[in-house]
Amino acid sequence: MSKMTADEIQGFMKKFFPQARMPVEIEELRDGFLRIRVGLIDKHLRPGGTVSGPTLMAIADTAMYYLVLGMIGPVALALTTNLNINFLRAPKLGDVIAETEMLKLGKRLAVGQVTIYSDGNDDPVAHATVTYSIPPDATRSAKPSG
Amino acid sequence: MSKMTADEIQGFMKKFFPQARMPVEIEELRDGFLRIRVGLIDKHLRPGGTVSGPTLMAIADTAMYYLVLGMIGPVALALTTNLNINFLRAPKLGDVIAETEMLKLGKRLAVGQVTIYSDGNDDPVAHATVTYSIPPDATRSAKPSG
Amino acid sequence: MSKMTADEIQGFMKKFFPQARMPVEIEELRDGFLRIRVGLIDKHLRPGGTVSGPTLMAIADTAMYYLVLGMIGPVALALTTNLNINFLRAPKLGDVIAETEMLKLGKRLAVGQVTIYSDGNDDPVAHATVTYSIPPDATRSAKPSG
Amino acid sequence: MSKMTADEIQGFMKKFFPQARMPVEIEELRDGFLRIRVGLIDKHLRPGGTVSGPTLMAIADTAMYYLVLGMIGPVALALTTNLNINFLRAPKLGDVIAETEMLKLGKRLAVGQVTIYSDGNDDPVAHATVTYSIPPDATRSAKPSG
Repeated sequence: MSKMTADEIQGFMKKFFPQARMPVEIEELRDGFLRIRVGLIDKHLRPGGTVSGPTLMAIADTAMYYLVLGMIGPVALALTTNLNINFLRAPKLGDVIAETEMLKLGKRLAVGQVTIYSDGNDDPVAHATVTYSIPPDATRSAKPSG
Repeated sequence: MSKMTADEIQGFMKKFFPQARMPVEIEELRDGFLRIRVGLIDKHLRPGGTVSGPTLMAIADTAMYYLVLGMIGPVALALTTNLNINFLRAPKLGDVIAETEMLKLGKRLAVGQVTIYSDGNDDPVAHATVTYSIPPDATRSAKPSG
Repeated sequence: MSKMTADEIQGFMKKFFPQARMPVEIEELRDGFLRIRVGLIDKHLRPGGTVSGPTLMAIADTAMYYLVLGMIGPVALALTTNLNINFLRAPKLGDVIAETEMLKLGKRLAVGQVTIYSDGNDDPVAHATVTYSIPPDATRSAKPSG
Repeated sequence: MSKMTADEIQGFMKKFFPQARMPVEIEELRDGFLRIRVGLIDKHLRPGGTVSGPTLMAIADTAMYYLVLGMIGPVALALTTNLNINFLRAPKLGDVIAETEMLKLGKRLAVGQVTIYSDGNDDPVAHATVTYSIPPDATRSAKPSG
């Protein structure tokens, strides 16, 4: 169903975005759904230990990018066109879990929603909708790199 | 769990918004979730029979208002502060189903997401996140009108 | 500079959307900017005379559509993909003024912002950003209908 | 008019957010408006030199926070509740300029828009609307720290 496996996505990210140092683990990837776990490090934290808003935004954007990769294959040029995020609660210390659901995967636009949790808590800390622009012909020509 | 039943919400809407003529049926209401069915009439349709964007926006706003009412009681002064909607697919002819999930019900803000379907189709036609401002003390003083 | 004049836009709207009954007057149209005046009628008002949220959303969507028409010509199939609106203040009685600024007119997406005022007041009642999807080749083939 | 000067804001940020290393220079601050210049460093850049989306989101969030500080005084607890951003064009190499306009400064919510440019270019690279929640009594009790 997916165009790339979790391992292929991780390899792709390492190759094309070597400077990205947010440690992302793919816990589940299936058609239309992705769950990642992000281990936060000091620079993502605010005084008191809470995760900063910009870090949550970066996680939402990354989560959606991973799901787009998984569903259409290695398209480095997919670009975020819109991101809307609501911050709901202060995150707890610990890992962050982001669950992404694809709402529409069209030829030109992919729209998904990302719900972000603190590990072990059922109440979401943030919710985002993210739109990516898909380059022309990406869905036809994209092929797994593995 | 809910502060108002489906019947109480319908009665409240008729009393305070008598001019609203969109026929809304509450199919399910429980803590944190509402599903409504909206029967569209001619003035909501575009040539070709598709539902207009503004009608979908009004449905998203209404659906969230109903869920806020259900969860905090008859608060006429709850006001929309933000609505973000992505239009995903052309709606089909027929009823529209809107499912609303409360993401956070705080003292000052209620944030929810609304997924809108054409009746009988699993792919959403639109997805919205909606924020309502809750008047001070509303959650304490609000009482069911029944 | 514009592909359609104010009169051509009005004629286009009457032909393709004859059921739209919101009275819109184009006060200013130039490259990248449009100002419209909307005369509200009873069905747009809430008890107490204030303009309803869905009416403001419809105005934001319409205003952006008019500016897209003015800048790329008569493209009936331009479709709203995203609309984000913040409601800022209760509107006053009277006409509504909407000023739209094009932020980007690309080949595939047009993004604009709409600031909505009550006539005679400098403080905006609502602010929206609106994205339209442009059909392929629309910018090349679109011609004024006049 | 402002509750804090540019220097007071810079001092406040250094004290409360010492780990923030994005170099921000306040170019203009007046009632309802702020312009900042951000000098980007390697970790904000994507291959090819373009500014990453998450960096632009962080800049939009920071710019609005600075303007809130300038207008209501040193309120460390003002929190982002919603951020909506449209990415419009690829940024150029060089500094980033962010212009923030306050749309509404209420007792409970502050809503502003941020337009982001590459230095020396008139076409915006991104546009955001940002909402901050103001802690109760912040506008009454806040006092400049200088």
